[in-house]
Amino acid sequence: MTTRWLTPEEQRAWRAYIAASLLLEDALDRQLQQEAGMSHLYYSVLAGLSEAPDRSMRMTDLAESLKITRSRLTYVVARLEKDGALRREGCASDKRGSVAVLTDEGMALLERTAPGHVEMVRRAVFDHLGPEQVEQLERICTGITEALQGDGAEAVTSDDLPWRRRSCSSG
Amino acid sequence: MTTRWLTPEEQRAWRAYIAASLLLEDALDRQLQQEAGMSHLYYSVLAGLSEAPDRSMRMTDLAESLKITRSRLTYVVARLEKDGALRREGCASDKRGSVAVLTDEGMALLERTAPGHVEMVRRAVFDHLGPEQVEQLERICTGITEALQGDGAEAVTSDDLPWRRRSCSSG
Repeated sequence: MTTRWLTPEEQRAWRAYIAASLLLEDALDRQLQQEAGMSHLYYSVLAGLSEAPDRSMRMTDLAESLKITRSRLTYVVARLEKDGALRREGCASDKRGSVAVLTDEGMALLERTAPGHVEMVRRAVFDHLGPEQVEQLERICTGITEALQGDGAEAVTSDDLPWRRRSCSSG
Repeated sequence: MTTRWLTPEEQRAWRAYIAASLLLEDALDRQLQQEAGMSHLYYSVLAGLSEAPDRSMRMTDLAESLKITRSRLTYVVARLEKDGALRREGCASDKRGSVAVLTDEGMALLERTAPGHVEMVRRAVFDHLGPEQVEQLERICTGITEALQGDGAEAVTSDDLPWRRRSCSSG
């Protein structure tokens, strides 16, 4: 098969994306580490739970919503549980599952941490985008997500999405 | 200071970005691991060197171009050197520096690996974007990078960019 190399325009966009995503990940992690001793992923777990009914989610659903492997989530949840920010409970409707519940302490931690995090997201991203660009960013990213996890035959990796994996070397 | 929370539109765009970037990182790593036993970062080191004059770069410049810490780069370069894909040489003009040079073996590895990687990038990203969206993606990402590493007073983290750090816990 002939390789469909990127055009010069696509190459420029791809490099800009890779640079921005690495810098942004680093900046978000640094800000949260300095202010609250946690990485962006830990923050995302707390934020995800805070918006769920009863501030609780099944581990599998939480992994899917965060787009990570269950083994990686298990690791993060264990540390947050040790810190008292959440607790795990058995799932009544599914013996295989287990449920993560945000504690009051975890909610308070999230509320203390959110303003600094949001300020960083604003300064790094949204302060520089017009309303049209905000919409463009959402459309482009939604397209990428659908390509990678869509249920259709065209999905690139639907058999092998992170949260469906039994084990994972990068977990 | 009053927190400048994200608007609903910004929240949607931000969540779409986080989901897409996590899925994409995972898909790129998995494809490259399966085909060539290396993560996307290792591939990026080889690709970066392949485009430099004499296929060589100073470690500091390489870290800056990849937007990562020097300690993380040192780790990656050590493994690629062990595999024979590159070698390190002293830098004639700067005794503190050191230079990474892509070997013929490394170039051959890159050439074998590039078609599968580019196909994944196309299927995940560019097959779903029109020419206008490619340009939008580049503009948005360039704006984020400039916000995070610009030299002006408005730069968010210019004192603390990854490649300028002496040591780094996430290195």
